[in-house]
Amino acid sequence: MEKEEKQIKPVPEPTLRRLPKYINILTKLKRESVQFVSSNTISEELGLDSIQVRKDLSLTGIAGKPKLGFNLDELLHSLYHTLNWDNINDAFLAGAGSLGSALLGYKTFKTYGLNIIAAFDNDPEKIGTTLNGIEILPVEKLTGMIQRMHVNIGVITLPADEAQTVTDMMIDGGIKAIWNFAPVHLKAPKDILIENAQLSQSLGVLTHKLAEKLKSNPL
Amino acid sequence: MEKEEKQIKPVPEPTLRRLPKYINILTKLKRESVQFVSSNTISEELGLDSIQVRKDLSLTGIAGKPKLGFNLDELLHSLYHTLNWDNINDAFLAGAGSLGSALLGYKTFKTYGLNIIAAFDNDPEKIGTTLNGIEILPVEKLTGMIQRMHVNIGVITLPADEAQTVTDMMIDGGIKAIWNFAPVHLKAPKDILIENAQLSQSLGVLTHKLAEKLKSNPL
Repeated sequence: MEKEEKQIKPVPEPTLRRLPKYINILTKLKRESVQFVSSNTISEELGLDSIQVRKDLSLTGIAGKPKLGFNLDELLHSLYHTLNWDNINDAFLAGAGSLGSALLGYKTFKTYGLNIIAAFDNDPEKIGTTLNGIEILPVEKLTGMIQRMHVNIGVITLPADEAQTVTDMMIDGGIKAIWNFAPVHLKAPKDILIENAQLSQSLGVLTHKLAEKLKSNPL
Repeated sequence: MEKEEKQIKPVPEPTLRRLPKYINILTKLKRESVQFVSSNTISEELGLDSIQVRKDLSLTGIAGKPKLGFNLDELLHSLYHTLNWDNINDAFLAGAGSLGSALLGYKTFKTYGLNIIAAFDNDPEKIGTTLNGIEILPVEKLTGMIQRMHVNIGVITLPADEAQTVTDMMIDGGIKAIWNFAPVHLKAPKDILIENAQLSQSLGVLTHKLAEKLKSNPL
């Protein structure tokens, strides 16, 4: 038990965002039967600064062995544990449109401990059907079911104009964290975690940088 | 023309990631027929620091009017221009699975200037069909079509083990920027822009923070 609680320092967000990258690389190396890995190898594979990598890994509470580096299984375990991906996190999804359906079919979520147990929509044609084995229920049932089942995570894949109403319903039910895909800023009490996975944020970085690049180096 | 090129300072990435949030709020205010808006209003709506907001907005090259604040239309234009969303950016998408299909159906991309003109897959059952009016072509045609049509952006919605091969095909064709949704680190020459839109990054922040919250404040 104590072994699990070795994490002491808070892990800053930029580090948290890099951890899945380390998991990707290590999972690949594991398939290649690698047993020990150095932070230099990881930094080279990812094109990241090696001091940064070492700092990130130490924040997960793991120490490498001199000469050998990190035991790959232990390092993977430490990364999963820091992200809480070694636990199962139950979630409800609201909005079974095209993006919502894609997320319901995204098998990799299971690897990350995210277990979407039901989806909610207000379209009578969708209600009662299942998508990848996940039932679609009427949105009126959302608040009550969160209360009854103590679900902590709500995933919002609704259009912008419906997102806030359903967020309020989730909060009424006692949801603790919301993963928001709607292109809108959600209002919520301070103790509710809101994490935005809005595609527009990374698209904006891409299109801005591309425009800069084309300006300085036109065809 | 000169008016368009008022942008001088480079815009840092954290600012770029916030600009779509400002667009969301301003679009909402525009629907409510608001004509002028202050940086304080924006910061209150978004729960952001007002100095931060003012700094971000000034980086897009716009200045507010004393007492009145920002002209909403001008501010929106300035934000769109900084992100290059006032231009049309043609893109090819590789991987017409569930996530790829969802992106092909995501109408909001048009608002952001992203125009996915064709999708590529290696599944014979998908090739030749259309999804939301977008044709699915054999992946063998990808390199040649990028060359011929001078497409700058490639969107990767493939499984991890297929993503690098198709990235290489895109680069061979002369792609300039890749928007990567595959849970893998893509290798590419330094002059190719790679922007990761991996869902795992924001999910990891959410599940970590939720675990911390539950630890300090268990049910």
